[in-house]
Amino acid sequence: MAQLRAFESAKKSGREIPEIVCFEKQDDWGGQWNFSWRTGIDQHGEPVHSSMYRNLWSNGPKEALEFAEYTFDEHFGRPISSYPPREVLWDYINGRAEKSDVKKHVRFSTVVRWVDFDVNTDLFTVTVEDLKTGKTESSEFDHVIVGSGHFSFPNVPEFDGIETYPGILMHAHDFRGAEGLADKNVLLIGSSYSAEDIGVQCFKMGANSVTISYRSAPMGFDWPDGIEEVPLIKRFDGSTVHFHNGETRKIDAVILCTGYLHHYPFLPSDLALSSPNNLYPDTLYRGVVSEANNKLFYLGAQDQWFTFNMFDAQAWYVRDVILGDATLPSATEQRQDIDRWLQRFGALDGAADDIGFQADYIRDLIEQTDYPMFDLDEVSRIFLAWKDDKKSNILNYRDQVYPSVMTGTLAAVHHTPWLQELDDSLERYLSTPQEDEIQRIVRGEESSHNKAAQK
Amino acid sequence: MAQLRAFESAKKSGREIPEIVCFEKQDDWGGQWNFSWRTGIDQHGEPVHSSMYRNLWSNGPKEALEFAEYTFDEHFGRPISSYPPREVLWDYINGRAEKSDVKKHVRFSTVVRWVDFDVNTDLFTVTVEDLKTGKTESSEFDHVIVGSGHFSFPNVPEFDGIETYPGILMHAHDFRGAEGLADKNVLLIGSSYSAEDIGVQCFKMGANSVTISYRSAPMGFDWPDGIEEVPLIKRFDGSTVHFHNGETRKIDAVILCTGYLHHYPFLPSDLALSSPNNLYPDTLYRGVVSEANNKLFYLGAQDQWFTFNMFDAQAWYVRDVILGDATLPSATEQRQDIDRWLQRFGALDGAADDIGFQADYIRDLIEQTDYPMFDLDEVSRIFLAWKDDKKSNILNYRDQVYPSVMTGTLAAVHHTPWLQELDDSLERYLSTPQEDEIQRIVRGEESSHNKAAQK
Repeated sequence: MAQLRAFESAKKSGREIPEIVCFEKQDDWGGQWNFSWRTGIDQHGEPVHSSMYRNLWSNGPKEALEFAEYTFDEHFGRPISSYPPREVLWDYINGRAEKSDVKKHVRFSTVVRWVDFDVNTDLFTVTVEDLKTGKTESSEFDHVIVGSGHFSFPNVPEFDGIETYPGILMHAHDFRGAEGLADKNVLLIGSSYSAEDIGVQCFKMGANSVTISYRSAPMGFDWPDGIEEVPLIKRFDGSTVHFHNGETRKIDAVILCTGYLHHYPFLPSDLALSSPNNLYPDTLYRGVVSEANNKLFYLGAQDQWFTFNMFDAQAWYVRDVILGDATLPSATEQRQDIDRWLQRFGALDGAADDIGFQADYIRDLIEQTDYPMFDLDEVSRIFLAWKDDKKSNILNYRDQVYPSVMTGTLAAVHHTPWLQELDDSLERYLSTPQEDEIQRIVRGEESSHNKAAQK
Repeated sequence: MAQLRAFESAKKSGREIPEIVCFEKQDDWGGQWNFSWRTGIDQHGEPVHSSMYRNLWSNGPKEALEFAEYTFDEHFGRPISSYPPREVLWDYINGRAEKSDVKKHVRFSTVVRWVDFDVNTDLFTVTVEDLKTGKTESSEFDHVIVGSGHFSFPNVPEFDGIETYPGILMHAHDFRGAEGLADKNVLLIGSSYSAEDIGVQCFKMGANSVTISYRSAPMGFDWPDGIEEVPLIKRFDGSTVHFHNGETRKIDAVILCTGYLHHYPFLPSDLALSSPNNLYPDTLYRGVVSEANNKLFYLGAQDQWFTFNMFDAQAWYVRDVILGDATLPSATEQRQDIDRWLQRFGALDGAADDIGFQADYIRDLIEQTDYPMFDLDEVSRIFLAWKDDKKSNILNYRDQVYPSVMTGTLAAVHHTPWLQELDDSLERYLSTPQEDEIQRIVRGEESSHNKAAQK
């Protein structure tokens, strides 16, 4: 969506832009934010893309991901809170894309089966299948931009005895909500965002206990009673889980919050990015141009503090490379540039370093393009404040508000505290409930305001 | 595995056989019978193949699937029961394949990404990825045999309100065991083998209630108290399910037993079989030769009464076509032959007809090859007796025994009744427990004989 918008922006300033075809496996755009209740395999036999659950609210302040050239003020026409639910964020990115009239470039329900590059013609052959008709076809392209993300294919490790674990077992990718885990003893394996947020969700939805198992270090939040971090699993024995510290626990449900794989089944191995999830995947010049083939690009391949606005910076730069407005240096110079960044990346020490690194990376990109520069240092400060908020109280950090870096507008305090809010819909979010209704919700007397949570 | 064995058999009788490469996505062979605890996406980012659950025992008598040239007697050296658990059946098919020394042809953990046919060279180009190294490579083949099955990609329909259903929700493809559904109110959607067997599993493992929702007609077994069939779902409203007969039920877990898709993501649409799951998929001459390209073959693409021995008959025939021992008629004659079978298929009326049809289909294949002919009518009678057994008692039909059509050996009565047996392992199955232990199990006093079921 960022890439389509980037080209549209050039077109609006009078530039001639190339023919663009965007192949999208899902039947709508929005990627991760295009929620699906489906898990595993979708209605067409394809892996389900989105890893999102019904009840997900942004886990970082929206002020840190705001587009520099399409603000929340512009979209909603009034201040909203800093941590909107997924439907609200989808509405925001959809609104920008709809406004720029780029949907015509997208062939939905169309999966890319295979991409070949011909060194003689200097062209890519892209073979796709229209999932609604089952028809495959191939066409040629000068450039290919991979925007399929890397938080879709679950990384699922093996544990001794897990093959006979009798309870509920899934990867976070297939988690769709914690209502069904009420009164359960839940085990989460992992210590990153998935474990943090699903753990809090399980708590919110009434799990009896939440055990979070870490490999190297605990997240260390000031967890409420009912959430606890323990070391790594040694083995499963039926529904009993043995941990490396000698503890054992009876567990009703296990959610593997063990991350995702870079996986590009439509690309030959000499073109497919292979990397762990980190802030500077090797072999990408300026984080987007494939060293192996400078006509192939990746968007958002990095581990992410910055998100939407980083994708924009990348898309604007890729656009300029394709339009010839940005010139690529020689292969040697590309490698030297990558090495310089990798060297700095290797020396990063802690969150503040990481955030500053990604801010500098984005700054470097924006400086090459006409994307509106914004106060990256201020966004970095918001990230650090967010981390402090979570440290103070992992259960209510979403009730905090931040000012927009783009417009200065202070976010609105949301009508209902996040922990008590059980209705995650756009409609509910944008509504103006009466004060007495909110008080009833806060006191837990209004369990019926979310139909999905009725049990 | 049948195809490898077919070629090996020809080789043993002195025939020269072509170079064979078998690409297998999983890290071992056995297809469906190669159980995995994983669901959705596997460790390499690929869709999990097997739809099998831990506790699955054959749901048809082994006497109906026995290989004509590798008997259960030969493999186990003694009579075993008629309905072995999955590990035992895997052992049987693995034993035959190991014996024939064909593993050398198989490249495991290698997924076929794309197949192209070149009309000029008359060759297929097959592009594969070694999932362990991530390397892709292409090679050329004269013939391609598709043996990837069609019970792997779930068919998942949509229901009004399902997107906010808060309970446990999965397709039968991702079901791995019912222990975690003890005390739950479970809803199964579907009325074929998955619903039948998972329903009985849920009952066996202590579900509070099992509701089975059918679209056209109920299965109509003499269900025990606790299992009930109801018409199709109208809509979900939170965890309340509304049915077309006006009933509503509160449901804790939903399992979609809604079948599977023919799905061949590695084939262009002009070569990919497109068919509902039926006894005679159109466009396949003799059920195996692709009309679109006579060098492309499908094994086991039919809906199945006969299984292992039908795959054998097909594999032997495909082998003979490739070796030139069987000659294909003209395209017109192929079409006429397909039409004749389709006409008969269209007139089938009930199970006896269906079974007879598939028996005749197999007979026709075996008559073209040197595969040992066996008493197909006797197998058909076993199928009908099996149906009667299920009608009499869906909970204990697996305790019945049948004589082998191949050797005459009567199956052994298993040491423990299926309904009380909680340990599904090969080790337990082949063991000889003491009579008093069995009695304790039958009386429910030996809950610890299956570690996986300990809760």
